[in-house]
Amino acid sequence: MLCVLSGGTGTPKLLQGLKDIFELSVIVNTAEDIWISGNKVCPDIDSVIYSLSNIIDTEKWWGVAGDTFKTYHRLKELGIDENLMIGDIDRATHIIRSEYLRRGYSLTEATKELCKRHNVSQKIFPMCDEDVSSIIKTPKGIMHFQEFWITHRGKVNVFDVEYQGVKQAKMTKEVKKAIKMCKAVLIGPSNPITSIFPILSIKGIKELLMDKKVIAISPIIGRKPFSGPADKLMKAKGYDISPEGVSDCYNEFLDILVVDKVDKHLEGNKTIENKNGDKKIKVISIVSTSILMKNREDAVNLSKFIEELV
Amino acid sequence: MLCVLSGGTGTPKLLQGLKDIFELSVIVNTAEDIWISGNKVCPDIDSVIYSLSNIIDTEKWWGVAGDTFKTYHRLKELGIDENLMIGDIDRATHIIRSEYLRRGYSLTEATKELCKRHNVSQKIFPMCDEDVSSIIKTPKGIMHFQEFWITHRGKVNVFDVEYQGVKQAKMTKEVKKAIKMCKAVLIGPSNPITSIFPILSIKGIKELLMDKKVIAISPIIGRKPFSGPADKLMKAKGYDISPEGVSDCYNEFLDILVVDKVDKHLEGNKTIENKNGDKKIKVISIVSTSILMKNREDAVNLSKFIEELV
Repeated sequence: MLCVLSGGTGTPKLLQGLKDIFELSVIVNTAEDIWISGNKVCPDIDSVIYSLSNIIDTEKWWGVAGDTFKTYHRLKELGIDENLMIGDIDRATHIIRSEYLRRGYSLTEATKELCKRHNVSQKIFPMCDEDVSSIIKTPKGIMHFQEFWITHRGKVNVFDVEYQGVKQAKMTKEVKKAIKMCKAVLIGPSNPITSIFPILSIKGIKELLMDKKVIAISPIIGRKPFSGPADKLMKAKGYDISPEGVSDCYNEFLDILVVDKVDKHLEGNKTIENKNGDKKIKVISIVSTSILMKNREDAVNLSKFIEELV
Repeated sequence: MLCVLSGGTGTPKLLQGLKDIFELSVIVNTAEDIWISGNKVCPDIDSVIYSLSNIIDTEKWWGVAGDTFKTYHRLKELGIDENLMIGDIDRATHIIRSEYLRRGYSLTEATKELCKRHNVSQKIFPMCDEDVSSIIKTPKGIMHFQEFWITHRGKVNVFDVEYQGVKQAKMTKEVKKAIKMCKAVLIGPSNPITSIFPILSIKGIKELLMDKKVIAISPIIGRKPFSGPADKLMKAKGYDISPEGVSDCYNEFLDILVVDKVDKHLEGNKTIENKNGDKKIKVISIVSTSILMKNREDAVNLSKFIEELV
C-alpha cells in the first residue's frame, strides 16, 4: 500500500496514474476547507474524490467535468458572490458531506460515505476531524487561504502563514493506521506550505514519517511552481523557491526527492546534519524524471517511476 | 392598503391580480418552513416572492418558471432524497435567506432583503421570526407538515394538527403595523388549518383582526378544496368541509366570506352567537362570485370583486 499526502491540484493529477499501480490511502489537507452557502466545501478532498472517480474537470483540475453553475450565477444576479465557484453537481457533494456532519458524523466518516457514493475504492482520509485553517498574513490583513487565493487571486504579498486550530487537531486512528501500514509514503507535488505543512503540523504525523520510506515529488520545476502560489508562500516561510527548498521543507524525514529533468544537475545524495549538531545525519537522495503532468499518460509515466522507487 | 394573510398556493395566485389594484402588505405563514441541505426553505414566502416578481412557475404554483434541478438530481443519483424538489434558481433564494439568518438577521429582515433583490415593492412579512412548525398527528406517527404532504403525499389519515413553537412566537412590529394601518384584511383562499391558523395562533393577531374589516375567500368550492389537503385537515380539526366550515374557522372576526358561484345559495347574512351566550352577536355576510383561478384573468376579476368589497 502506498500512502499519499495530498493537496489540491498536482497530487490529484498524479493519483489518476497511481491508482492503477498501487493500493492507495490518501491523506488529504483540510486547511483550505470553508463553509459556503450553508455547506462545508473541502476543496482538496473533493478534487481527490473527483480524480479517483474520473469525473474531475481536467481543464481546471477542480470541480466536475461538464458541471453547470445555475445556482452560483443566480446568486450573482441577486448580488451575492459565493467566492468559490461552486457547480451544481459539485454542490451536491458539499450538501451530502454537511448533512453527515450535521447528524454528528466526523469528517472522516462523512468522507468515507462520499467515497462510497462516488464508487471510489481507494481510501481517502481528511488529515484530521477538527477545523484547521491556513491563515495568510498580508499587508491587506489576515485572511483565510480562500480569500487570499480566490478573492485576491494570490496577488498580495505574504508575510506569514499560520495553521489556525492545528494545535487542537488530533491524528485520527485512520491516518495513523494508513501511515503505519503502508510500504512507503509519497508526498505529492502539492504546495508544501498550505497543502502539506498543515498535515505535517498535526501532532504525531512527522514522527510516524521518520520511520517510513518517504518520497516527495517537487512541486517546483527550476525556480517556478507547477501551479498555484507555492513560490510566494515558500518565500514567506523562508524557503528557497527551488527543488532544494522543497527538500528543506521535508528534510526531517525525507528519503527521496523526485525533481524534474530540467533539475537533473541536482541528482545525487544530499546530506542533512541534524539540527542539534549531533552525529545523526540524514541522506536525501535526489532523482530526476519528467514530472510535469500535461495529460494522463504523463501521470502514468511518473507513477511507474515512483513504483520503481518504492 | 390591503393586508393579505397568505399561505402557499391559492393566495399567491390571487396576489398577481391584487398587486395592480392595491398597495399590499402580505403576512405569510411560516409553519411549513424547513431546513433542507443547509438552508432554510420558506415555501410560502418563496411562492409569494416569486408570484409578486412574476417568476413563479404558473403550472405548479411553486418554484421558479424554467428552473433546472441539477443539484437535486445529483443528490438523488448519490442516494439522497431532498424531500422538497429544490430547483437550482430556487436554491439561491434559500441560500441568501440563510446567509442573512446566519449573520444574525431576523427572518423579517432576511425576507426584506430577498424582496429588494427580487425587485418586489410590496411588503412581505413572515408571520413571526421564531420557528413554528405545523405538526401532523397521523396513524403513521407525528410528522412535520412537509413529511405529511411531500413524503406521504397527504395520503395518511390526520388525527390532529399542532403548531409547535407558536406559544413562544411574538407578533412582530411589522405585522402589527401592517394590520393596524390597513384598510381591510383579506384572508386568501389558503388552507385554514396549516396556512392561516398558524398566523392566527400568534398572540395578539386575532385581537387586532377584531377591529378590522376582514374578508375571507373560501378555499373550498362546494365540498372540495381548490387544491391541497384542506379537506382532511379541516375534518381533523372538527370543521365541516364546506364554505360554512371555512366561515366557522374565522367567525370570531370575519365580516365577509366570498364563496364560489356554485355556492350561491349560501349568500346572505349568517349570524354568529358569541360563545359565552351573551348578547354580542356577529353577522357574517356571505357573497358569491367566480373564485376558481385558472389564469391571471380570473385572478384579476376576483381582485376587482374584492376591490368593491373593500
